[in-house]
Amino acid sequence: MKSGKILVAQGGGPTAVINQSLVGVALEARRFSEVRRVYGARHGVRGIVDEDFVDLTQETSHNLEQVANTPASALGSTRDKPDLRYCHEIFKVLRAHEIEHFFYIGGNDSADTVRIVSEEAAKAGYPLRCIHIPKTIDNDRVGNDHTPGFPSAARFVAQAFAGANLDNAALPGVYLAVVMGRHAGFLTAASALGKKFPDDGPHLIYLPERTFVLEKFLADVKSVHERYGRCVIAVSEGIHDESGEPIAAKLAKDLERDAHGNVQLSGSGALADLLCEEIKTKLKIKRVRGDTFGYVQRSFIGCVSDVDQREAREVGEKAVQFAMWGQRDGSVAIKRTGFYSVDYELAPLEAVAGRTRTMDDAFISASGTDVTDAFRLYLRPLLGSGMPDAFRLRTHPVAKVLRRG
Amino acid sequence: MKSGKILVAQGGGPTAVINQSLVGVALEARRFSEVRRVYGARHGVRGIVDEDFVDLTQETSHNLEQVANTPASALGSTRDKPDLRYCHEIFKVLRAHEIEHFFYIGGNDSADTVRIVSEEAAKAGYPLRCIHIPKTIDNDRVGNDHTPGFPSAARFVAQAFAGANLDNAALPGVYLAVVMGRHAGFLTAASALGKKFPDDGPHLIYLPERTFVLEKFLADVKSVHERYGRCVIAVSEGIHDESGEPIAAKLAKDLERDAHGNVQLSGSGALADLLCEEIKTKLKIKRVRGDTFGYVQRSFIGCVSDVDQREAREVGEKAVQFAMWGQRDGSVAIKRTGFYSVDYELAPLEAVAGRTRTMDDAFISASGTDVTDAFRLYLRPLLGSGMPDAFRLRTHPVAKVLRRG
Repeated sequence: MKSGKILVAQGGGPTAVINQSLVGVALEARRFSEVRRVYGARHGVRGIVDEDFVDLTQETSHNLEQVANTPASALGSTRDKPDLRYCHEIFKVLRAHEIEHFFYIGGNDSADTVRIVSEEAAKAGYPLRCIHIPKTIDNDRVGNDHTPGFPSAARFVAQAFAGANLDNAALPGVYLAVVMGRHAGFLTAASALGKKFPDDGPHLIYLPERTFVLEKFLADVKSVHERYGRCVIAVSEGIHDESGEPIAAKLAKDLERDAHGNVQLSGSGALADLLCEEIKTKLKIKRVRGDTFGYVQRSFIGCVSDVDQREAREVGEKAVQFAMWGQRDGSVAIKRTGFYSVDYELAPLEAVAGRTRTMDDAFISASGTDVTDAFRLYLRPLLGSGMPDAFRLRTHPVAKVLRRG
Repeated sequence: MKSGKILVAQGGGPTAVINQSLVGVALEARRFSEVRRVYGARHGVRGIVDEDFVDLTQETSHNLEQVANTPASALGSTRDKPDLRYCHEIFKVLRAHEIEHFFYIGGNDSADTVRIVSEEAAKAGYPLRCIHIPKTIDNDRVGNDHTPGFPSAARFVAQAFAGANLDNAALPGVYLAVVMGRHAGFLTAASALGKKFPDDGPHLIYLPERTFVLEKFLADVKSVHERYGRCVIAVSEGIHDESGEPIAAKLAKDLERDAHGNVQLSGSGALADLLCEEIKTKLKIKRVRGDTFGYVQRSFIGCVSDVDQREAREVGEKAVQFAMWGQRDGSVAIKRTGFYSVDYELAPLEAVAGRTRTMDDAFISASGTDVTDAFRLYLRPLLGSGMPDAFRLRTHPVAKVLRRG
């Protein structure tokens, strides 16, 4: 290795543990004597083309550990989706700085970027090891048992629904919350792990893997409300009708699309408000409340899964190990090996780029509005230790004095 | 004491620590040999008139402790606002069951109920000790340094904004979140304690104690966005124009009013969406996101201030102490005695009923969109121990190679 320089960057939406992966790369690489400089690019691939680099080699280990425990991309991030020309610019900069190893922490779109840069380097005959490090809050990456960032967001959603259920039991009515997840319902389904007793909410869960039919939704809500006097509902932001059109799109006045062509679904309370309006007017239920959890699902400081933290750190460290000892580029993937244990593999970049994972049928109940025990078994270990628990008063009724019978 | 029976109930919106107060009453009362039965009314005053009682004397101490740590009213709650006739019915039931001490845990409206029931008993010559136990998330009770329930909600808001700021720094744009608080801005102001570095958000805070002017709001946002390239904003759900009309009311299509005559502000994403729309269209900023935190602020299981838990427990215990040793009815009030220590007094029911506390001028900056150090000093001890902390990478720039200058 001549220059001994490596570069790491973060792309896409932030997660609560994305800095664990960054620090995993920075500290693991420093153990190898061939590595002389660890550069970080600010704001992802945009920072690369702008040559906006910081030298992480000069950062103290202790501060890196503190940053590792801090949510949201410490190097900054970007929503840019590089095309071929953009990727060529990226490669030019990497070569100008004599970068030998390129690590990019991001979601599905970023794996594609890494693939193209890898191909550019191969075409130019420039020795460059490119490793993609996964992150997501949707859990929508193919080829992974799960992806770092998801377990902590799932923990937040489970805890939020545990609390929402208690609140709803205290002041009964209909409560609905919209959860992130355009195509994959894992995060919305995580709400089910906030449920403890058989009559607890969420009573109904609407995932993007199933067609949403408004009339059936209303019938479901009516049925639960008649049975329990209340109803707690989890709805994915990505629910859509049989033609695939997002329910949210039918009402959001200004439809924004980001650089990846995704309908901008986050940040709008419209879906929750519309569904609540339907419930109020069609079911004549007065006490109806809707919330959209929004960005707090992925950035809430103080609700993180320790399993997620450990694994996010390891995928960064494994990326370095794969780069140092391996002979090829790829994307780090998590495989489940036991209950509960994982190992890491290097998947080919082409295998995962551009593909989206969704909830397995085995995870969704036959009714379509609940999860199965298979899902509970899948998710529970990922939520980590120290999950809060909710308790109820037992019933010891007192005989009425004034009213007979 | 002849019957040895006491009754406790919970009213109004749930908080994360309201069961601490309930259990404080139940366990402290059991230490007195005169107390033979501790009844709990289900769903507040509604449960009293319906004689829907549970015997807490038969509940195990251990389960009571677990319930104490569980958010949201374990006995259930109600939004009913009793008029004179309703209060008379309450008194009838209390007398029929030979209740000697009546404890009601609730907000401002419930203190009025306790006062009327106390007067009914006095008129009837029936010996009944009535103690009101405060709870709130708004911190809007007069005569209290602060009120149980508020510190935990404030902790949630501070942590949420700490995370939102990190997220916004990673993917810069404008981020706005609407926080609970109809008339009092304490909870919205708590967002300021999520700010660590001088350029951190929230950069702008809009409280109901100040008139909201849309043009000034837009000018503020523009100025911050030009300075930092991003902007994080905290907005109270209760912001209003100079005539006092809620900004939210101008756009919420179906305006609901609850039994207390309050405009239903929770559960609607409309305010956040409207303000974001204004920013997008008038300031031509593309990346704008709005969230409404909703009920998760008061029920999130796993984000509770230990100071709040201790004080909520003590106000319940003090209520019993005041009832056993004192000669009059009243409302338990928290007074700050040192940095940081509190003591409890029994305030007259008339002194607090029906009055709303708002943010002191000394807590609001001259600009109107920030808090003062006096507020930081006031709030910080209430948030409790183990507050998560956010860390940044230090800057060690790398010289550009391709671009000169």
